[in-house]
Amino acid sequence: MLQTRVIQPADNAYQAPLLIKRLLLSGSRYEKTREIVYRDLVRYSYLTFNERVARLANVLTNAGVKPGDTVAVMDWDSHRYLECMFAVPMIGAVLHTINIRLSPEQILYTMNHADDRVVLVNSEFLPIYQGIKGALTTVEKTILLTDGADKTADLPNLVGEYEQLLAGASPQYDFPDFDENSVATTFYTTGTTGNPKGVYFTHRQLVLHTMGMASMMGAVHTPRLMANDDVYMPITPMFHVHAWGVPYVATMLGIKQVYPGRYDPELLVGLWKKEKVTFSHCVPTILQMVMNAKAAQDVEFNGWKIIIGGSSLNRSLYEAAKARGIHLTAAYGMSETCPMISCAHMNDELLAGSEDERTTYKIKAGVPVPLVEAAIIDADGNFLPADGESQGELVLRAPWLTQGYFREPQKSEELWEGGWLHTGDVATLDNMGFIDIRDRIKDVIKTGGEWISSLELEDLVSRHPGVREVAVVGIPDPQWGERPFALLVAREGHTLDAKSLKEHLKPFVEQGLLSKWAIPSQIALVTEIPKTSVGKLDKKRIRLDIAQWQEAGSAFLSTL
Amino acid sequence: MLQTRVIQPADNAYQAPLLIKRLLLSGSRYEKTREIVYRDLVRYSYLTFNERVARLANVLTNAGVKPGDTVAVMDWDSHRYLECMFAVPMIGAVLHTINIRLSPEQILYTMNHADDRVVLVNSEFLPIYQGIKGALTTVEKTILLTDGADKTADLPNLVGEYEQLLAGASPQYDFPDFDENSVATTFYTTGTTGNPKGVYFTHRQLVLHTMGMASMMGAVHTPRLMANDDVYMPITPMFHVHAWGVPYVATMLGIKQVYPGRYDPELLVGLWKKEKVTFSHCVPTILQMVMNAKAAQDVEFNGWKIIIGGSSLNRSLYEAAKARGIHLTAAYGMSETCPMISCAHMNDELLAGSEDERTTYKIKAGVPVPLVEAAIIDADGNFLPADGESQGELVLRAPWLTQGYFREPQKSEELWEGGWLHTGDVATLDNMGFIDIRDRIKDVIKTGGEWISSLELEDLVSRHPGVREVAVVGIPDPQWGERPFALLVAREGHTLDAKSLKEHLKPFVEQGLLSKWAIPSQIALVTEIPKTSVGKLDKKRIRLDIAQWQEAGSAFLSTL
Repeated sequence: MLQTRVIQPADNAYQAPLLIKRLLLSGSRYEKTREIVYRDLVRYSYLTFNERVARLANVLTNAGVKPGDTVAVMDWDSHRYLECMFAVPMIGAVLHTINIRLSPEQILYTMNHADDRVVLVNSEFLPIYQGIKGALTTVEKTILLTDGADKTADLPNLVGEYEQLLAGASPQYDFPDFDENSVATTFYTTGTTGNPKGVYFTHRQLVLHTMGMASMMGAVHTPRLMANDDVYMPITPMFHVHAWGVPYVATMLGIKQVYPGRYDPELLVGLWKKEKVTFSHCVPTILQMVMNAKAAQDVEFNGWKIIIGGSSLNRSLYEAAKARGIHLTAAYGMSETCPMISCAHMNDELLAGSEDERTTYKIKAGVPVPLVEAAIIDADGNFLPADGESQGELVLRAPWLTQGYFREPQKSEELWEGGWLHTGDVATLDNMGFIDIRDRIKDVIKTGGEWISSLELEDLVSRHPGVREVAVVGIPDPQWGERPFALLVAREGHTLDAKSLKEHLKPFVEQGLLSKWAIPSQIALVTEIPKTSVGKLDKKRIRLDIAQWQEAGSAFLSTL
Repeated sequence: MLQTRVIQPADNAYQAPLLIKRLLLSGSRYEKTREIVYRDLVRYSYLTFNERVARLANVLTNAGVKPGDTVAVMDWDSHRYLECMFAVPMIGAVLHTINIRLSPEQILYTMNHADDRVVLVNSEFLPIYQGIKGALTTVEKTILLTDGADKTADLPNLVGEYEQLLAGASPQYDFPDFDENSVATTFYTTGTTGNPKGVYFTHRQLVLHTMGMASMMGAVHTPRLMANDDVYMPITPMFHVHAWGVPYVATMLGIKQVYPGRYDPELLVGLWKKEKVTFSHCVPTILQMVMNAKAAQDVEFNGWKIIIGGSSLNRSLYEAAKARGIHLTAAYGMSETCPMISCAHMNDELLAGSEDERTTYKIKAGVPVPLVEAAIIDADGNFLPADGESQGELVLRAPWLTQGYFREPQKSEELWEGGWLHTGDVATLDNMGFIDIRDRIKDVIKTGGEWISSLELEDLVSRHPGVREVAVVGIPDPQWGERPFALLVAREGHTLDAKSLKEHLKPFVEQGLLSKWAIPSQIALVTEIPKTSVGKLDKKRIRLDIAQWQEAGSAFLSTL
């Protein structure tokens, strides 16, 4: 280590550790009367929000929650979830946001693995919870959440019902200071193999992520993406990377927040209208569903700014959203990265260029946000040039990346091999700082000596007017190693077959945008494409399905 | 300390310390072609900026600068100064920004006290430097800065001229990682007694201050104060709290930056026009001078956003600026606080109120920015309520406050008494989070049993149409302890005397805005009011002057 002049913190000079409580202090100071809204059920001010967080902290402390303990939540996206995102870490405990879309067995695994002590469970999840409670090894107490009239349930060591408990608790709590490197949150990410893996973030990391996002959304992006005068509604679940960390940003800025419970498109459109939502974030699939909702048929979504992440944003969705008045911005991140890594930025060079070129850049993964460093490496770990051409694994450094997977030392080692976080994504970097994700390393299709990006192929296929959804995977081929296979959902009222797809792709081959070898060998028309619990294409499942169909000689497979 | 679950940083998981190099990386990534401008002399892109910082780092390293060494700069506000703000801390050294408005004796004191090893000195300051160089105890080498043709000077151990040295150095430098608590910058603040005191800030503090300012300016304030699409020109000197830290923010965001050298109003107006400046910051006095400049006579400063700090912003200046198209925002901070602490914010309650009420709040010290905590205490250290009425000393906590005064343990203890940084300012806090500075503790006028705020009195006096400038101080009085004394500069073409001032103040007494005892006992009409080196009213000097005039029985003193 260099011999710089390092300050030894003086005993009396208060160092103001980076703690989540400072984010709540900020928002509640800026705006006392702004609202937190939960569907059409709950509505209160930041002043009340502040008090309710203190009440919840008292409830948890009275229930025996100690600093370092893990408190788990199973709830729809709600004001209660938001309160937990503050109260639990602010007393020094760890918030475990349970992924309610996992199987009961996986939920059980994560709860035992995370050492959950106290669980807050929504009555609607009791059927799942009752089924696993006997096998829970660390849970001591339960708190019931409900939107209905049920104020009790048959649960061991039930402390009580959330609202009744809050009503009986003091609205004052002297939130302590502690080490900013204390774990604040944890949740589980599902890979293609093995058990879900627990990632975790400290107070310091969440505060820095919040500042980085606020700087990027407010001061870099034009027009600004989110600011004090916006109305925020998340459309990615709070169990998944704390709804991308945006509730922390929104709270720091004192923004009105609208929590929709579950992601029913009709409900979301209704809330958008009623609450005058101006900012959201979601994966492409759900945006498509929202735009197709019945309630959205005659709606111009003017002024709605949406960050798209989770999967790549294709040009046709970007254009379709724009035609409906929605300003989309692509961003990139993953569970392990808190998640924000990069976001589209229109720099002076792009602003001077054509609209078409700008669109090309608006749908890329974007430019790293302040404090993030990105690089690409080859299979041997050598750094590759940022020339927009060289493809390699995207690796990252930033002050808000998970330090590993909880109790998985070997997987943690692999994640951080060489001192960079390995994303598992193949990308290019260009001289304007843009990251362009080409594929997941394991989804790249290796045919002959060539690598084909399944994402690029999906983008070109999706431009066929008859394609509503598409997934491309590589399937084993004795001659070529792998060959591309396209799973397609047809758009109503359009015809879609192997011949018309081939005709559609030919011009791209002629323009040099697509190699001849990349034209899929086979397609299948289906009514739905399998998705993971967070709405991404489930390529592992797709490969299994295709293998079964091939074995069975299914009639709906066509050869191009 | 609470037993939270503290993460022991894993060896391989890279922690991305908060270092200044990450701010430069961010801006240079966002905008390659944006410009850094120095008067009409220099203009280059961020790409070149990045390379020049690397060249300077090589020059300094070759000159023997080691991590932990202090490198001092005596320059006008320039692109060179900006380069030093990055290159010096980025090699692990400490940047000492010399206050060129101090007396040669004080400059000498600060240079020896700070252990300056290498000095970069502008040829225009050679007369001062030559006078003190013989008494410098730690300086080993000198680098010459010049805007002219002079490429050498009679200096001991002159390394060379800046531009020639940069031209000969490599544009590559592998900037190392080190502890984020390493000191990055230092400068001296002058009090009313004793030697200048050295405050210092670490990489961590400057990075967090930058993120806090970017969040506030971009995501809290509407319309946003500074963002990627602005053009920035500082009008507070770079030697003084790094031009309020804004060059770091501007660089992180990739903003065009215009450095004016010295603060000549005519020059500033010229640059404003030519470079299309949209954001600046300054003290009230200099704004007044800019608006009064000859070059500004027929200029509508439309779209110019200016943060006003250093002294309180009064209503008449706010209104005058508004009439000229300038959007002023008051902010508060001091050398010890990096400096940004608070900034005006129009919350929903104020937006629903009257324009007049909003103006009242726009000229207050503002609401603390994210991560800052503010409180007021009485003389015994008891916390006072945030009721908008109770007055006490403003004390602060934030992650970017100086940990003390360099080599002044006793003054550092006093600064941090009770674990809060003591500002020396008397303030109120209200339930909307607004800080209202009433006075410096030592400038409060104690008459009879009553405390009169000299700032409030100055504000009311300044509304007299004949008053161009005013300073009010307490002077000893055998009967009342102290009595207010007003020093006035008359506005051209207006009459101003004791009688008309008394008539002007009477209605405020009738409205209950001013106590009868607060009407100044005496006034003096002068052509200029003494200012400190950073442009604030020099009340220490004013008190001395008045004492001398009283002793001499000066004819221009009038009694009200």
